[in-house]
Amino acid sequence: MKIVLIGSGNVAYHLAKAFHQNDVPLVQVLGRNHEALQEIHAATGFPICTNWEKIENADIYIVAVKDNAIQECAQKIPNKKAWVLHTAGSVSYQEIPEGFQRGVLYPLQTFSKRKTLNYQEIPFFVETEKQEDAERVMQWASLLSPKVMYADENTRRQLHLSAVFACNFTNHLFTLAENICQQNDIPFEYLHPLIFETVDKIKTLSPKDAQTGPAIRNDMPVIEQQLNTLAGRPKEIYQLLTESIIEMYKS
Amino acid sequence: MKIVLIGSGNVAYHLAKAFHQNDVPLVQVLGRNHEALQEIHAATGFPICTNWEKIENADIYIVAVKDNAIQECAQKIPNKKAWVLHTAGSVSYQEIPEGFQRGVLYPLQTFSKRKTLNYQEIPFFVETEKQEDAERVMQWASLLSPKVMYADENTRRQLHLSAVFACNFTNHLFTLAENICQQNDIPFEYLHPLIFETVDKIKTLSPKDAQTGPAIRNDMPVIEQQLNTLAGRPKEIYQLLTESIIEMYKS
Repeated sequence: MKIVLIGSGNVAYHLAKAFHQNDVPLVQVLGRNHEALQEIHAATGFPICTNWEKIENADIYIVAVKDNAIQECAQKIPNKKAWVLHTAGSVSYQEIPEGFQRGVLYPLQTFSKRKTLNYQEIPFFVETEKQEDAERVMQWASLLSPKVMYADENTRRQLHLSAVFACNFTNHLFTLAENICQQNDIPFEYLHPLIFETVDKIKTLSPKDAQTGPAIRNDMPVIEQQLNTLAGRPKEIYQLLTESIIEMYKS
Repeated sequence: MKIVLIGSGNVAYHLAKAFHQNDVPLVQVLGRNHEALQEIHAATGFPICTNWEKIENADIYIVAVKDNAIQECAQKIPNKKAWVLHTAGSVSYQEIPEGFQRGVLYPLQTFSKRKTLNYQEIPFFVETEKQEDAERVMQWASLLSPKVMYADENTRRQLHLSAVFACNFTNHLFTLAENICQQNDIPFEYLHPLIFETVDKIKTLSPKDAQTGPAIRNDMPVIEQQLNTLAGRPKEIYQLLTESIIEMYKS
């Protein structure tokens, strides 16, 4: 099976590395950003290319580009009988032009280039246009990770949405906490054990049962005191999340 | 040194276990909730008591009770020359009546009773009324953890505030993510690798540099699609956090 990876961003970078680590060679990594492609080449040794006219013939094209570039990239793929899989959480496989064997290979993970990852731990969610092809694509995906599941479009969108809460928004809260530390000459590292424990808890407790802090205690003196030291967006966020916690646990 | 611990909640439970694990015996754990005290006794073997009239004479009283009960509890301590340390993040040592040797021993951690903890990893922040006593109290604290730091009242309040963002609010986002999963028959465990990676990143990256997701990409189609599937508080939270991320990274 010849596989071409299209894209040069964070997802493409880590997918290329995942293929490399699992000894699955890519015949080409095609993308716009030459510098980013060179990083991929340095990490994997795979051939890279910025020229669409030199796109390799392959059986599978994995399109790991921005959501709004999926359609345009897929249209340029020359082998119209090939498998074309995009990697987006909230995009239908129908964004890929008809005629191809269409599907999705969605890795549920947060990808930062400067961070190593254990690819065996990443769940991949597969969808195929034709139900009968699902098994086959899931087998390919299992070359990358033992955690391969089927997810239809709605399930994948909901996975993506819950990931935005659990990862993207969570990271933003860490950033706001870091800002408070920096403004007060407190090393953010002091919070690390607390953050690691917050996450360690969910291995054994539902987060619903693990909630602590002033809001769940309905501790108005502390809540008001803390609100008074905040301003702008952080204050609004504090207020809204506090109300949400209070409401969830009142009974 | 004779130490009495006052309280029977989550903080008292884990402090008692921390003393026990470090072979520092408590002469008594005094609290209101007999059942909770029995759990502490079962975990540590320390004598327990619900009767204030039988409070033991000690050199150090650690008052690990709700913020609004600190003053009342401290007032009942019979040895007016003793050290009295509360464990609250956002309460002044002056809540302890004058006359005692007053101070604070604030463990920066989230305490759930049904969760084991590595106490060596917990940072303890000490404050004393008299600067010259700080060293001594920090030495006692180092019986519990190697991570003992001095923090004045304002620093401690700011630590507490940043902890609310990094831990309490974060955990609430996990709960909202879990709700989305449950409503769509998705096992929340699918999100675990993502959450663990979100946190693993902060070991090597500032969260500011680790931000990913639709908001930082200013990806309006995904943002609007996701907003459309939400309602109520989760929708408000999605909107506010998305705006906060967009603003932080626009330049």
